[in-house]
Amino acid sequence: MFIENSINEFIEELSSKNAVPGGGSASALSSSVGTSLIIMVTNLTIGRKKYVEVSDKMQEIKNALEINRDKLTSLIDEDSKGYSAVMDAFKLPKDTEEEKLARTQAIQEALVVAASVPLEIARVSLDSLKYVPYVFENGNINAVSDAKVAAVMLRSGILGAIYNVEINVDSLKNREVADKYIEEINKIREEALRIEKEVVNV
Amino acid sequence: MFIENSINEFIEELSSKNAVPGGGSASALSSSVGTSLIIMVTNLTIGRKKYVEVSDKMQEIKNALEINRDKLTSLIDEDSKGYSAVMDAFKLPKDTEEEKLARTQAIQEALVVAASVPLEIARVSLDSLKYVPYVFENGNINAVSDAKVAAVMLRSGILGAIYNVEINVDSLKNREVADKYIEEINKIREEALRIEKEVVNV
Repeated sequence: MFIENSINEFIEELSSKNAVPGGGSASALSSSVGTSLIIMVTNLTIGRKKYVEVSDKMQEIKNALEINRDKLTSLIDEDSKGYSAVMDAFKLPKDTEEEKLARTQAIQEALVVAASVPLEIARVSLDSLKYVPYVFENGNINAVSDAKVAAVMLRSGILGAIYNVEINVDSLKNREVADKYIEEINKIREEALRIEKEVVNV
Repeated sequence: MFIENSINEFIEELSSKNAVPGGGSASALSSSVGTSLIIMVTNLTIGRKKYVEVSDKMQEIKNALEINRDKLTSLIDEDSKGYSAVMDAFKLPKDTEEEKLARTQAIQEALVVAASVPLEIARVSLDSLKYVPYVFENGNINAVSDAKVAAVMLRSGILGAIYNVEINVDSLKNREVADKYIEEINKIREEALRIEKEVVNV
């Protein structure tokens, strides 16, 4: 479990030549951090006199974001597992025709999982990002820069996850699944870029 | 030291209503992760037969990036210290005219430090980002998505750091320092956005 490691250790592991953790886990971390920053802003808003009118709404948002944050944190480890499974499948024996067939099938099955994990990262991250404009506009004014950092980190989490969907989908033989995934990530990307622009004009 | 904490604990701390760690530390983390991913790509390239022609150059880049990564990881904690000092200064007594003067001066001094730490994050992150196009184009083809994730995470680290420079500079009375910082972050932003586009067409 990488998420039980210290930040220092995670950074060290990420830099190493081991393929996991890699860009998918990094994307989930980026979105988990972005989501946490928005939760912080809700925490700095809820119950304050000046923000009494938005307190209930902020509490609702906070509850939803805590679920997203926990999902995204789990996805840091899940992405590494998904990619490890692909590498394991590639190591299967390929001496006989039967083995070759079984290996190809194992690789293809592992690739679907390896693509679906970052797709889930992108989905959950987009859900977090959708709350950012409201919190940015109505939350504690002293935390306005934190909301902006959240927006850019959720953008990286989403785009990073999308690059990981794309790379796995590229090798998929089942083009029906591939096309469905590509269609979904294209929609997510478009929406994410639009929402980020609502919060930060770069 | 937040960086000795587990990722789980860091995420928890970030979400809490404590103002530190906040967006500045998150930005340093984003850039540290982005830098680590590019180091991983150099590690997956150096010494491989197919990449023998770029091995020396990749080793050089790796050495430079390891220094940046370690700086950025330290800046996660340093940013929180810088912001804590501003909050401490605000808590100084302000009963007498003398106290008021000393407090204002302490706040102003702390703000310069609190702005200079994210400025350093932005500078080091931009230096990391400058290596990404070369590694992206010449590094191990299997790690191309990791280089793209690195680019977007360095962009967030830089923009996030810039928002933190801006928020601290806003309250600075010394407009000479303020203008100098703003001039530098504007240049960094422009360059960062240009380089990210070389690697990812979003």
